[in-house]
Amino acid sequence: MNVSELGEFGLIELLADIVDKTKSPEDASWKSLLIGIGDDTAVWQADGAIQLATTDSLVQDTHFDPNIITWEELGWKAIAVNLSDIAAMGGAPKYALISLALPGELSIDNVSRLYQGMAQIAKRFGVAIVGGNIASADKTIINVTVLGSLDSTSALARSAAIPGDQVAVTGYLGLSAAGLRMLKQHLKLDLETTQLMRQAHLTPMPRIDEGQILLHQGVKAAIDISDGLIADLTHVCQASQVSARIKQNDLPIHPALKKNFKSDYLQLALSGGEDYELLFTTSSQIISRLKKVMPCPITVIGEITEGKTGQVILTDADGRIIPWQKAGWEHFKS
Amino acid sequence: MNVSELGEFGLIELLADIVDKTKSPEDASWKSLLIGIGDDTAVWQADGAIQLATTDSLVQDTHFDPNIITWEELGWKAIAVNLSDIAAMGGAPKYALISLALPGELSIDNVSRLYQGMAQIAKRFGVAIVGGNIASADKTIINVTVLGSLDSTSALARSAAIPGDQVAVTGYLGLSAAGLRMLKQHLKLDLETTQLMRQAHLTPMPRIDEGQILLHQGVKAAIDISDGLIADLTHVCQASQVSARIKQNDLPIHPALKKNFKSDYLQLALSGGEDYELLFTTSSQIISRLKKVMPCPITVIGEITEGKTGQVILTDADGRIIPWQKAGWEHFKS
Repeated sequence: MNVSELGEFGLIELLADIVDKTKSPEDASWKSLLIGIGDDTAVWQADGAIQLATTDSLVQDTHFDPNIITWEELGWKAIAVNLSDIAAMGGAPKYALISLALPGELSIDNVSRLYQGMAQIAKRFGVAIVGGNIASADKTIINVTVLGSLDSTSALARSAAIPGDQVAVTGYLGLSAAGLRMLKQHLKLDLETTQLMRQAHLTPMPRIDEGQILLHQGVKAAIDISDGLIADLTHVCQASQVSARIKQNDLPIHPALKKNFKSDYLQLALSGGEDYELLFTTSSQIISRLKKVMPCPITVIGEITEGKTGQVILTDADGRIIPWQKAGWEHFKS
Repeated sequence: MNVSELGEFGLIELLADIVDKTKSPEDASWKSLLIGIGDDTAVWQADGAIQLATTDSLVQDTHFDPNIITWEELGWKAIAVNLSDIAAMGGAPKYALISLALPGELSIDNVSRLYQGMAQIAKRFGVAIVGGNIASADKTIINVTVLGSLDSTSALARSAAIPGDQVAVTGYLGLSAAGLRMLKQHLKLDLETTQLMRQAHLTPMPRIDEGQILLHQGVKAAIDISDGLIADLTHVCQASQVSARIKQNDLPIHPALKKNFKSDYLQLALSGGEDYELLFTTSSQIISRLKKVMPCPITVIGEITEGKTGQVILTDADGRIIPWQKAGWEHFKS
């Protein structure tokens, strides 16, 4: 069997299993580990505080097209996608390491711009870029590792959803995927929509403050939406051994998305991916409190239920089940 | 100008400069940073202990050829090269994050073997593999980030060499580059030499214990030899604003290297690279102490001098200067 037949998530499971079977659980590093492979970040207990670490790559032609994204935007995004993982744990990002694989013929100007974009978002979130590595390759690959810490005794986790929880999301869904389509197909939309969708796709703003508020208000379960709403909610349901029902009519759809993508705004919102919004589950009491203190809109879209582990059911306004086509983004599978 | 014209080290300097000019030095992350871009690892003061972080990639066709290295060996090496950076600071490795870019047609068996090799070295050094990322790409790229800590108030650093220091190295030089040549050219050497050189090139053993001993015995300046002896000693001299003289006849050359590579064993030892030995500078008193406690051979090869910053002079037995051709390995330059 090859990598594309097994798929990204199957491969992660297999590799996590190898690591688990070969480890020495009595080693200090393993003993202090709180969350390992399979969540948005790794989490461990250090001397002073709880530490977080996450890594993510942007691969040319897989994740980005240099004809669509500028080098500054690419730098911003490469760090943003990692900060979003820190946000999903309720953490504060601290340090970043940048590993670049670059073609020799790439202009220095472009690499400088890439770093300018990285420096901008790093400054915005108080992150120090402290090291990295440069190697030559046929295509550009940007790998970023972000380390952070937690101002609490436990992190938000994928595995903490319980039946009866409300399922909620920050912001709007589908704008990033719509932005990608707009840019790829050279769609001419009005200026405000163009800016909104460009920004959602090219320079997403990680929900760092929002993640910390969730944690401090008592939320236990969260994930950031990178693979798409359905796919990421499925990850939560699998890790928590629960299922979920979400109401299609309750999804937070931006009016500009509905207006410009009349036939498939729902598909974009359900499985477009790269939203970098936070998906979380918690009690309705906590949701009420959150609505007063969150600096962004939050929308309840469904609930966690007992039932088949990992199952996500989509319903219409009357509670009727709607089948869906494509659950989200997975590497190696189309 | 493009990346290959500027070269790896010029590019690192330029990017470090961008980071430096755009940072907010009053941010907590920057305030607690002790060593940033430009040494083997980043070093910062955390609540409890001093933290280390380093990242390094192995790129198919740049750093490895799947026809020469097995997938287990590749897994071992991908982590070993990062552990070697931790060793160069005198640190203890703790956690690793693995970011893989893989072609869809790669067999699952090979990826499993890669992880088996990683798991083996991780176990050997008490490192927990706690997370990672998988993306699709045309060629395999393995990016590893290792986090560690320091049982001391300061790290070994490239910038701490002072005139009058002896220059010394652990182990032997040139075996890894000789191993690569042996494997590429299908040279038939005796069994023991074949094993020695294969291991030096394919499954290097990072000098973790040795680095910690150096630090505890009072050594201040060190680097691991990845680019080649001359190149890495040049890095130390540049960072410390000193120069160095080394005696060609004092280089630790393994008898098997001398015997099998009669015409160019010196070139291999001086600039072959990927030795993953430690190069350090310190007083002759400390060298005497080290000779009693180090678990591996250490050899004094020269001394740190005042003089032109970054200059490394090679001399013969009578102190006459010998010019050399190729200083070491640099990405993008041939």
